[in-house]
Amino acid sequence: MTEDKSFHMTPDEFRRYGHAVVDWIADYQSRVESFPVLSKVKPGEIRASLPANPPAQGEPFQALLKDVERLILPGVTHWQSPNFFAYFPCNASGPGILGDLLSSGLGVQGMLWSTSPACTELETHVMDWLVGMLGLPEKFLSSSTGGGVIQDTASSAALCALLAGRERATGYTSNKKGCDGRLVAYASTQTHSSLEKAAMIAGIGVEHLRLIEVDENFAMQPEALARQIEADKHAGLTPCFVCATVGTTSSNAMDPIAAIGEICRRHNLWLHVDAAMSGTAMLCPEFRHLQDGVELADSYNFNPHKWMAVNFDCSAFWVSDRKALIQTLSILPEYLRNQATESGAVIDYRDWHIQLGRRFRSLKLWFVIRHYGIEGLRHHIREHVKLAQEFAGWVRNDDRFELAAPVPLNLVCFRHKGGDAVNQAIMDGLNRSGDLFLTHTKLNGKLTLRLCVGQTNTKAWHVANAWKRIREAANELQKIA
Amino acid sequence: MTEDKSFHMTPDEFRRYGHAVVDWIADYQSRVESFPVLSKVKPGEIRASLPANPPAQGEPFQALLKDVERLILPGVTHWQSPNFFAYFPCNASGPGILGDLLSSGLGVQGMLWSTSPACTELETHVMDWLVGMLGLPEKFLSSSTGGGVIQDTASSAALCALLAGRERATGYTSNKKGCDGRLVAYASTQTHSSLEKAAMIAGIGVEHLRLIEVDENFAMQPEALARQIEADKHAGLTPCFVCATVGTTSSNAMDPIAAIGEICRRHNLWLHVDAAMSGTAMLCPEFRHLQDGVELADSYNFNPHKWMAVNFDCSAFWVSDRKALIQTLSILPEYLRNQATESGAVIDYRDWHIQLGRRFRSLKLWFVIRHYGIEGLRHHIREHVKLAQEFAGWVRNDDRFELAAPVPLNLVCFRHKGGDAVNQAIMDGLNRSGDLFLTHTKLNGKLTLRLCVGQTNTKAWHVANAWKRIREAANELQKIA
Repeated sequence: MTEDKSFHMTPDEFRRYGHAVVDWIADYQSRVESFPVLSKVKPGEIRASLPANPPAQGEPFQALLKDVERLILPGVTHWQSPNFFAYFPCNASGPGILGDLLSSGLGVQGMLWSTSPACTELETHVMDWLVGMLGLPEKFLSSSTGGGVIQDTASSAALCALLAGRERATGYTSNKKGCDGRLVAYASTQTHSSLEKAAMIAGIGVEHLRLIEVDENFAMQPEALARQIEADKHAGLTPCFVCATVGTTSSNAMDPIAAIGEICRRHNLWLHVDAAMSGTAMLCPEFRHLQDGVELADSYNFNPHKWMAVNFDCSAFWVSDRKALIQTLSILPEYLRNQATESGAVIDYRDWHIQLGRRFRSLKLWFVIRHYGIEGLRHHIREHVKLAQEFAGWVRNDDRFELAAPVPLNLVCFRHKGGDAVNQAIMDGLNRSGDLFLTHTKLNGKLTLRLCVGQTNTKAWHVANAWKRIREAANELQKIA
Repeated sequence: MTEDKSFHMTPDEFRRYGHAVVDWIADYQSRVESFPVLSKVKPGEIRASLPANPPAQGEPFQALLKDVERLILPGVTHWQSPNFFAYFPCNASGPGILGDLLSSGLGVQGMLWSTSPACTELETHVMDWLVGMLGLPEKFLSSSTGGGVIQDTASSAALCALLAGRERATGYTSNKKGCDGRLVAYASTQTHSSLEKAAMIAGIGVEHLRLIEVDENFAMQPEALARQIEADKHAGLTPCFVCATVGTTSSNAMDPIAAIGEICRRHNLWLHVDAAMSGTAMLCPEFRHLQDGVELADSYNFNPHKWMAVNFDCSAFWVSDRKALIQTLSILPEYLRNQATESGAVIDYRDWHIQLGRRFRSLKLWFVIRHYGIEGLRHHIREHVKLAQEFAGWVRNDDRFELAAPVPLNLVCFRHKGGDAVNQAIMDGLNRSGDLFLTHTKLNGKLTLRLCVGQTNTKAWHVANAWKRIREAANELQKIA
């Protein structure tokens, strides 16, 4: 074994194999529509094709790439297909992928300002840009009392917000003494499940997350919220946090932020606004009325990795009082001490989230914003909204179908009037075909189909074809019945 | 505005710009030693070079890449330099970068098995491989009662372990009713700060995290742990969790897992083993004695993104009882229901961690294992350990210096006998020079320098040069004194 023996990939090999991987991805982008959107493999099928044991000796890179094609691809559900209408989108884009590639190549870990000043400062800068781009309140700016940080997901952002609310309500003692079983948080029955998970994690308990009833449009009823808070206070409990949603996952319902914000202010509760998908629409001034009252929020979150073409993960989170967040999560062991931190002149993002370590994620966000410009981003958002509105119109004009919820932006909730079994059959048949991928929810107890127009490359003909296929499926079922 | 207008990067453009980025990274790898390891910029300097406002119109890709070179690079601390000896390593490698690039290109979101079966199954498979590769107990295998999952960081893994311990101790009620202020967890005074953060987050409170005293080698004293648990039980508190460390961050101390594990078993406490950096050494059978007793662990974690050349983030976490973890974190809203999940035949990793969404991170782990093979990974670990041991020998043989802690693997804690000011001056001078990067800790109240040999490309001459520079710095200080 000589000193110089090395198993590493040399820079020249990296160049060669890197070109091959880039070419593979470019080809994948070109042929993505040729694959079944929802993978057709059965449970265990992918594992069965993999060798039982890891290789004792290294293998040539070409073998790896070949196996991605041969073994992995059949097990992929194609989130980057323009025929992906399921859940919420999770969009990659050329500039996003390449920004992320640079992050991998630089390989910096940005836990502290000093461990890569550019990683921290570019992030703060781009998050400040987004405050303006989305018409968010100035208190979220780093130059004000607040600031933004990139989190991995909206789940983590909601957890951080809940923790900060918990701490503020207990005078920053529950992170020291633990929770006392009396803290209460609030969301609507339509709020994303990550809030339940956050209440479980934060020691508040899911039974102390009050799920407030919604109105006929699935939006939180502020009066019900106010009543519940007062009841809890009378019962000697400690309300601490409310989550309002701009565009719920189930039906894209819009909670009335202004009314909820007034209640939070009156009771001194932390107001978190979750705009995970729909926040991207706020790039366009004409949609900002959907979050009127956002200036009352203590924190706000949206995911550029959903609808803004920044590939996963990239979740943008702001607070209006950064001290509250830092006081909630701060730790400073000796081995992380350094001059810049002691000076107080810098941001150390390790105190802004759950993790200590962090990737250079602002690179991909910066690349996407600069590649598209505000004009390009707005163009594609408007196009998606227009296509969803057209689709909603087709549903409205077909007697066999009905809309199940308002369509404020790009998510259409609809159903065949024939009942749950018919809708399930339409969805399962289409998904099995591989030609498109739809998912469902339940609204008012009824199975409801969801068509979300948001994949980067979805165009008019993809949406038109989806509607054609849905109608054909309904025709087939009628013939059988 | 026509229907077909598009601001997207076409596959052909992606190919061209992708090649340019790959070339840039290959060049970066070739010239990484030419940069100051620790960035020399001052607070605010990077931000000051960035435009105040985002671009209204998109910009050419070449401009982005040029700005990375011109504006970002000066603000980068070069974690991928072979002269990076600070903290713990955070290693990128060619196969790791390219596996991650494929993950970005495929852009799948693996929250459920069905949202990309390959994302889940490859992860389960490779995590099973690692159980064998590291000599971990078979109960961690997915074919047994346990299973592995890729987390982002050891902080998140520790939090999940603490939560599972909390739930098991409360009969799975604290995630429902909240914490009651009586739960207690245990770690040593040398345990990583992420455990304090986890106790804060989990509603246990940092005052209820008992920091057990250590012996002269900075390893937890099991008798002290046993005494504290008994005292807490007598006081009517609820002990729930112990974290033992294989290789502490401060000094690479090895907690006695077997003795701690026996105590945990006696009191029915969840034992988490944190082997964040040193776990990678377990690839080599000759180091496995450092974690004797690991079969008593309920969970185990190490970071392939530290010392195993899988670029950040990739933290490998196993539990011996997957049901405990799932029961702790599970949520299932209607919009995530699907046939595969209902069948019980698949793993849905969303219930194994804090987040809902997840990247296809097993690709880069799979690529690294296949590229290097077990042989290649072992070779580089053994080389790093050998270099650190040589460095420790040089310290031992220089009367002016002393070792501050045992050197079981690749971290050398040492100091100049002249006291804190001298050590601070040596470190600051070397770091300012840009030629290498060292960090410090405090051991027995004394400032201690840490030299961690673990960067992918660190070779004998880098370590020899570090020692030469340290001795020169000491000589200079003697002249001045």
